[in-house]
Parts: sequence; structure tokens; C-alpha cells
Amino acid sequence: MTGVRALNVAVLGADDPLGTAFLRLLSERDVEFGEVFPLTLAETEGCATVRGEELPLLDVVGFDWSRVDVLVNASRAVAAELSERTAADAGCRILGLGRGAAGIARVSVEGALAIALQRVLAPVQAGAGLRAVNAVAMLPVAVAGEAGIAELAGQTRALFAMETVEPEAFPLQIAFNLIPQVGAVQADGGSHLEQDTAGELRQLLDNRDLAVSVTAVWAPMFYGAGVAVHASVAGDLDLESMRARFADLPGVTLMDTAVPGGVATPATDAQDSDAVFVSRVRAGADARHDLAMWLVFDVTTLEAARLVDGLENLIEK
Amino acid sequence: MTGVRALNVAVLGADDPLGTAFLRLLSERDVEFGEVFPLTLAETEGCATVRGEELPLLDVVGFDWSRVDVLVNASRAVAAELSERTAADAGCRILGLGRGAAGIARVSVEGALAIALQRVLAPVQAGAGLRAVNAVAMLPVAVAGEAGIAELAGQTRALFAMETVEPEAFPLQIAFNLIPQVGAVQADGGSHLEQDTAGELRQLLDNRDLAVSVTAVWAPMFYGAGVAVHASVAGDLDLESMRARFADLPGVTLMDTAVPGGVATPATDAQDSDAVFVSRVRAGADARHDLAMWLVFDVTTLEAARLVDGLENLIEK
Repeated sequence: MTGVRALNVAVLGADDPLGTAFLRLLSERDVEFGEVFPLTLAETEGCATVRGEELPLLDVVGFDWSRVDVLVNASRAVAAELSERTAADAGCRILGLGRGAAGIARVSVEGALAIALQRVLAPVQAGAGLRAVNAVAMLPVAVAGEAGIAELAGQTRALFAMETVEPEAFPLQIAFNLIPQVGAVQADGGSHLEQDTAGELRQLLDNRDLAVSVTAVWAPMFYGAGVAVHASVAGDLDLESMRARFADLPGVTLMDTAVPGGVATPATDAQDSDAVFVSRVRAGADARHDLAMWLVFDVTTLEAARLVDGLENLIEK
Repeated sequence: MTGVRALNVAVLGADDPLGTAFLRLLSERDVEFGEVFPLTLAETEGCATVRGEELPLLDVVGFDWSRVDVLVNASRAVAAELSERTAADAGCRILGLGRGAAGIARVSVEGALAIALQRVLAPVQAGAGLRAVNAVAMLPVAVAGEAGIAELAGQTRALFAMETVEPEAFPLQIAFNLIPQVGAVQADGGSHLEQDTAGELRQLLDNRDLAVSVTAVWAPMFYGAGVAVHASVAGDLDLESMRARFADLPGVTLMDTAVPGGVATPATDAQDSDAVFVSRVRAGADARHDLAMWLVFDVTTLEAARLVDGLENLIEK
């Protein structure tokens, strides 16, 4: 890239956990980029740290998009989609999570749930032929950004103080509760996140006919997710060889349930790791063809790493 | 029963949420019983309320079993099984949750998870023929008794005060976490609770060949449980007629996801109710044969009601 001007990058949601993790990983890697503009949707004051330097957060409203070449959208807020469109109209290239704004050219990165499922299901598919996947995902509040984290902490304190609790970031009380609806539910009964995860997983596994059912539930946890996975395979299931595969799989940490404390949990294992922790590998309803397992991973770290990979690809092209 | 002495009843775990709820429901119903002895395993002082009267808690160690005709075991503690055996040897009849002590005559009541599943799956089975059930249950700490409730509250406070957290009632930190292991895991990878629920569900549905997979996870909630259920049926699935059946089903409350806040959650719906709340009724991985739904119920109230029914049957025989 000698002689070529390094690309300037705007990061939308730089004050959210995902944006912060993205900037941290980007600073650690050897990616050649120019100026960085940390953008906020929240009209908050503050700074973001990039390559050891403190940069003031900029309000996305009124931002001059001609200053940047790439917009990295690290926010899941609906308002962020409007900014994608404005940036695209101004000639920026767009990189972001999930489906993003409709009708614009965009490099889309899969969500952590699809990535984690793909990582453990790829060897299952290779070994025994994958037919159907049922995933029940318990998602942490970090997926709703800084506002989600503040709401869980604030509501928990308020309940202990016997104060009433008004939900804002979530549709209902999240403290000491589960909300089985992540984003709006569509006509077929699924949410965008559930539908997108199913589509992303089929694509990542290169298996267009795979039957996938995803249920996503908000759970009162901060960063780590837990997922109960059931997979149906065409061939005969060999649990021992499956465990042996997991033990050798890059990006996967197999935990032994027979050891006390040997189950993976969101708060004790996932934090700040980009590994997928697997435990309780066992037979499902049909012992010959059904595999059940429990996954844990840090949503933010996994997605931030994927966004950095995406930016690196985009810069090198 | 005129002329027959009313039966004296000991309640083990009378200081636990389940025992307390059992005594409350028993007092409300028109059951003819004699003296009540509230027993504790915890060596705690205090009282239990029976028919408006405060009775002191009695230590189960050294209790004179000849004073009672029936032991109602409302505790899931392993130590409670020893008391069942002692009471049985002394000539008591035993009523309790789950499998209880091996090798003694006993009236066993199904756990709330199997009851809730049966209630919504019975019409599915009648309508379309049930083939397989996958249930991922997120259980509240009340299932671990008063000690579980105290641990969630205490750990949450300690984490906010930046203090370290030592797990006792649970194998790992429960505050802001999920623990995918309820009781010890057996050789086949399942826990007793998971195995028992599968067996109880087959029995309740009178379907010995039903393929059932249960995953039980501790979640940081107090009383209500949330369960993601996937059911495979033999016939064709008609979601609209299924919803219509749920809307008319006794003991079931169908919630409409299209309404804001119209999803059932453990903290906002279940508490102190013996209904099973159903929402997010939709198609699963195979739209023709797979049904997905979300259940919420109060574990304690559901099990207490079943124990009262069990005692009533036992007294009337």
C-alpha cells in the first residue's frame, strides 16, 4: 500500500461495548489505517481510545462524511441504519453487523451467535452430515449496547432499594428476569436477529437446505452468552469422537463436565475471550442422531474481532 | 371420614418456598387433616403459618415420627431423602417431589417442568401426534430452596459492592450468570432432574416412546421459570388452530406477541400463579412439523398445588 493514502475510518457506536472492543483490537493489530473518527448516537460526551490516544466522541448528527472512506457500524440501534444511508450517499464504504440499511452496498459481518454455532457445527457437519439445528440463545445486555448494560445495573439496584423499575432499553423488566423477544417480532413469529442468525449459519456452513430454528432470549447477564444447541445428523453419532474433535478445534475450548465447576458459564469463562466454550456434549432426544451441547462465548469480543477482520479485508482489497 | 381420626402431617422443608406455599394452599382448601408439624433441615428458628396459626419449626433430627401419619417432603435436599427413609421405617406414608429415596413405598408428585410441558403438549399430541420434544428450561433459584434465594440476593449485592463471591448453594456464581447444570451430571451426560422430567412427561402424556431431551439451566431469577420448547409432530401443523386450542385450555394463559409487552416473562407474569403462560407460538425448523413456543410458570406454586392434590388423594383413600 506504499504511496497509497491510508483509509480514514469512522466508527459508529464508539461509546458502546462493541465499538470500544473494536477500537481496542484494531489498535493491537497491525492494520494500516489513517484517521479515526469515533461517532456516538447517544449525544454523550467523552473519549474513545485509539492507538493509545484519547479522541473525543463526535455526534453522528451533522458529521461531515467527506472526511472518511469507511464507516464501521458497530451499533445495532435502528437509528444507525439512517447514518449508513447518509454515509453511503456521501461515497463511504460501509462495514457493519447484520443486515443494516436496505438497498445500499455494504460489507456485512455475521453476528456472534452464527459464528459460534458455525465453529462447533462445522466438524459435526463434516463428520456426520448436519440435518437440523435448534438453538436457544440466552443473550447478555451488552448486545443492546451501553444502554443495555446501564439498564440491567440500574434496575437491579432499584429493585434492591424497593424502587419501581421503568423499562427503556428493553420492552420489560430485565433484572432477575428473561425476555424472550430480542427486537421486534415479525409476521412469521421470528425476530430479525433469529431470522438473520439462521440465514448466516446456512451461509457460513455452506448448507442452503439446513433446517434451523433459533430462539433468542434476553437474560440478566452483562457480556457472555449461553446457548443450548440441539443438532440432528444424518449419520450415526459418535459422542467420543465428537468430543475429541472439539478438543482439537481452533477457537474452541472443550470443558469436562465431570470436573467440579467443569461447565462453561457466561460470567466465569467467556469474558474478553474470543473462544467458544463447549460443555455438556451428550446425546439428544434420539440418541443415535441427536447431539446436545452447551456453548458460552463473549458476544462483544467475538463480533469486534470479526469487524476488525472485515476492515482488514476491505483495506487490503 | 366421620369417626375416623384425621391424619397428622409432617412437612419437611416448611421454611423453604415450596413448603411455605404448600402450607398456604393447604390452609386455603377444605382438606380434613389433623395436627401439622413443620420440619426444617436447616436448624433455623422461626415459625410456619398453618390455618392462620403460627407453629414453631421443628428440627427434623430427633423428630418423633410416631406422632405423624404422613410425611410430605417439600425439600429437594439430598438430606431429605434420609428423613424419608426414617419416616417410612416408623410407619409413615410418604408423599414427595421427584424420585425421592430408593426402595421405599412413596407417592411421587411430578416436578413443575413436566407438569407445565404436559399441560401445553397434551393438546398438541391430541391434534397432530407428538413425536419428539426438546425443552430448554431456565430455572429460578427458588428450586434450590431458601438457600438458593439467599445466595442470588447476597451475591448480587456483593458484586455491586465489589466484594468477592463464594458459591455455596450453587456450583458456581449465579448472580448475572447461567449455570447449565442443575444437580450432579450422570454417566449419560444428563442430570437427575433432566432424566426425571423426561420420564414424568412420557408418563403424564401416556406416550412411552416419546423422544424427549431436556436441558435445565440455573438462571438468576427468583420464582418464575422460562422454557423454550420445540415439539415435532407426525401430522401437519396448523398454528392458528393450535393457538385457538391454547386460548381455551384450562390452566393455560396464551399471550399475544403482537401486543407490546405481550411476551410472557418470569418476573412479570408467573409470580404466585398456577397457570402456565404461553407465548411466541410459531413454526420451528421444519415449518410443517415443528412447533416452537415459550412457556413461563411459577415453579413453587405449581408444585405446591400438586402436593396438596397428592395429599388430598392420599387422605381420601
